[in-house]
Amino acid sequence: MKPDQQETKNFKFELVHMDRHCRARAGVLHTPHGSIETPVFMPVATHGAIKALQPKELKDLSFQVLLSNTYHLHLSPGAELIAKAGGLHKFMGWDRAILTDSGGFQVFSLQKNSITDEGANFKGPDGENIFLSPEKSIEIQQLLGSDIMMAFDECIPFPTTEGYVQKSLKRTHSWLKRCVEAWTNKNQALFGIVQGGTYKKYRKLSIDAVTDFKLPGYAIGGVSIGEGKELIREVVEYTAPLLPEDKPRYLMGVGMPEDLFMLWENGVDMSDCTIPTKFGRNGTLFTNRGKIRIDHKSYRRDFFPIEPNLKDYVNSTFTRAYLKHLFDSNEMLGQILATAHNLAFYKSLAVRAREAILEDRFLDFKRDFLAGYRQ
Amino acid sequence: MKPDQQETKNFKFELVHMDRHCRARAGVLHTPHGSIETPVFMPVATHGAIKALQPKELKDLSFQVLLSNTYHLHLSPGAELIAKAGGLHKFMGWDRAILTDSGGFQVFSLQKNSITDEGANFKGPDGENIFLSPEKSIEIQQLLGSDIMMAFDECIPFPTTEGYVQKSLKRTHSWLKRCVEAWTNKNQALFGIVQGGTYKKYRKLSIDAVTDFKLPGYAIGGVSIGEGKELIREVVEYTAPLLPEDKPRYLMGVGMPEDLFMLWENGVDMSDCTIPTKFGRNGTLFTNRGKIRIDHKSYRRDFFPIEPNLKDYVNSTFTRAYLKHLFDSNEMLGQILATAHNLAFYKSLAVRAREAILEDRFLDFKRDFLAGYRQ
Repeated sequence: MKPDQQETKNFKFELVHMDRHCRARAGVLHTPHGSIETPVFMPVATHGAIKALQPKELKDLSFQVLLSNTYHLHLSPGAELIAKAGGLHKFMGWDRAILTDSGGFQVFSLQKNSITDEGANFKGPDGENIFLSPEKSIEIQQLLGSDIMMAFDECIPFPTTEGYVQKSLKRTHSWLKRCVEAWTNKNQALFGIVQGGTYKKYRKLSIDAVTDFKLPGYAIGGVSIGEGKELIREVVEYTAPLLPEDKPRYLMGVGMPEDLFMLWENGVDMSDCTIPTKFGRNGTLFTNRGKIRIDHKSYRRDFFPIEPNLKDYVNSTFTRAYLKHLFDSNEMLGQILATAHNLAFYKSLAVRAREAILEDRFLDFKRDFLAGYRQ
Repeated sequence: MKPDQQETKNFKFELVHMDRHCRARAGVLHTPHGSIETPVFMPVATHGAIKALQPKELKDLSFQVLLSNTYHLHLSPGAELIAKAGGLHKFMGWDRAILTDSGGFQVFSLQKNSITDEGANFKGPDGENIFLSPEKSIEIQQLLGSDIMMAFDECIPFPTTEGYVQKSLKRTHSWLKRCVEAWTNKNQALFGIVQGGTYKKYRKLSIDAVTDFKLPGYAIGGVSIGEGKELIREVVEYTAPLLPEDKPRYLMGVGMPEDLFMLWENGVDMSDCTIPTKFGRNGTLFTNRGKIRIDHKSYRRDFFPIEPNLKDYVNSTFTRAYLKHLFDSNEMLGQILATAHNLAFYKSLAVRAREAILEDRFLDFKRDFLAGYRQ
């Protein structure tokens, strides 16, 4: 049994309510940069910038936390430079909470030279060698000064043989130990990541090993890598309830509105995804009646808001016809407003889900929303 | 002598002060969509959108008027559609003043099939025929519902023979008469445009013909078309003082900060240009010490604001190092923040110029500014 890592300063998860009819939870995550109401959806600022939106706009939309990427910031402009600028919050003009990933996902998703027990070697965009290890990842994240750091893990592809899962888990768990040892700034919280592929027994094994470190939070890693929605659901349904009830649960890189309901129903508190921002830039907008392609000719004379039930700036100011016009004219403002709308939509989903959980009617909310959304 | 067109509703120019040492003027232009303090610089929203900025941000930057383009909006989405949407103000979410050009400049700048006394035929982007005439231009501008409409004129190239200038002036003045006759909505003001190329005698002739209509304001047209800064200055120095003192004077499509000082010094009240927005998107930023290319390596570790004397959101939040990082990373946010900065800079120039005029020290302000700017 490892010592409890609860000495983390200014960081505390408060479980406010569990829905009586399912596993959905409402909570508050206190961080050195403000509180985060859960369930929470986190927008992604890969390079220390939400694509197309200014930090003040994220505040106007009431976002309390965003995600940024260790690997990308390490490459450019470099963590030392950001530390010199006063840390990532100051550098990017965002004084609310930041979660940084560890680079572990890039071990999976980018071209790499080799992965050993020591760490992972990448080919950088200019052919240069990039080395990440548990120690290096934590060093970078501590230089960035994020509120929540993620452990450096190996995200394995799907499908994977049992043999490799076993070998990789051993590595991920020993890397977690090294992360914990490298973690010196207790103003930053460290989350452990559970791996194990689609094998229940290895998920269980990983949960036991990872939670043994008594960390401030836990993530379910290695999902949404091509295994399909049914297998994601299976892993989440099995894994989430086995995580400690009094710690926040985070699932990385998922997804569409319907996916969020699945996560929340199973007691996941935090998630992130590039979908709302990426889809927005492409002209795909989320509404209570499903997704729409705003450049479709049917919106030419549609003088209604994108989503009449949203009261944010975009929906109280602009029409579908105007957004279609902006996309038709290749105006950057189209991508900006579409991004702001999609994030407003995702934010409102999380807010409405939380309200429903607090009133024990999450399943009703989910049913009603999906009935309208899937029309 | 034509009847006075002063019955224009809710539109009035108030000449507040003339600098004792030069021709610079401070005024207030009252419009149905709020007052405009002059001298004023107007950002350009060609397609009914300032590239990269939301209307609320222009408000935050205290802009009181913007320019939009008749030709482009006529092409797409069409003035009828915008009228159906409730007019251009509502369509684009901007409740302050709007000036629309007439399409006359596009007669000069775009490929055209023919120009006759009736009007101008253009080839549209899809090869279609676009016809603009004085009547058509005013009809479009009245459908758009701008606060200030511009007369449809012929902008002649440089250099032009005296013979053609004479012939073209006759056309421009008869077109102005037809504009005035087509102008039915007196909630919108119509400005006449003085042409005459670089010939003083034809400028004088045009001034007499155009001001005879007793319009709410006058523009100096046909400048900044390749004749060079010295000839622009000559035309402005000669033309501006001959325009009625009690009417706003507008010069279209100029320019760089140093050009604005020349305009203001000669008693021009209004101008517009795409330079601050276009340069911003390219990473060229204006400062009191001149222009900088923000992607230059020297800004990599420059943790100062772009212009420390500006107190807007961008300069009070972000550093040169962050903006360089955004441009290096191809983040759209770089273009957004650079555009906002450049417009904040232009706005502050006009505000400082007005303050200086009110205190009879415009020439000192100009000298001091340019000394720093040209370092």
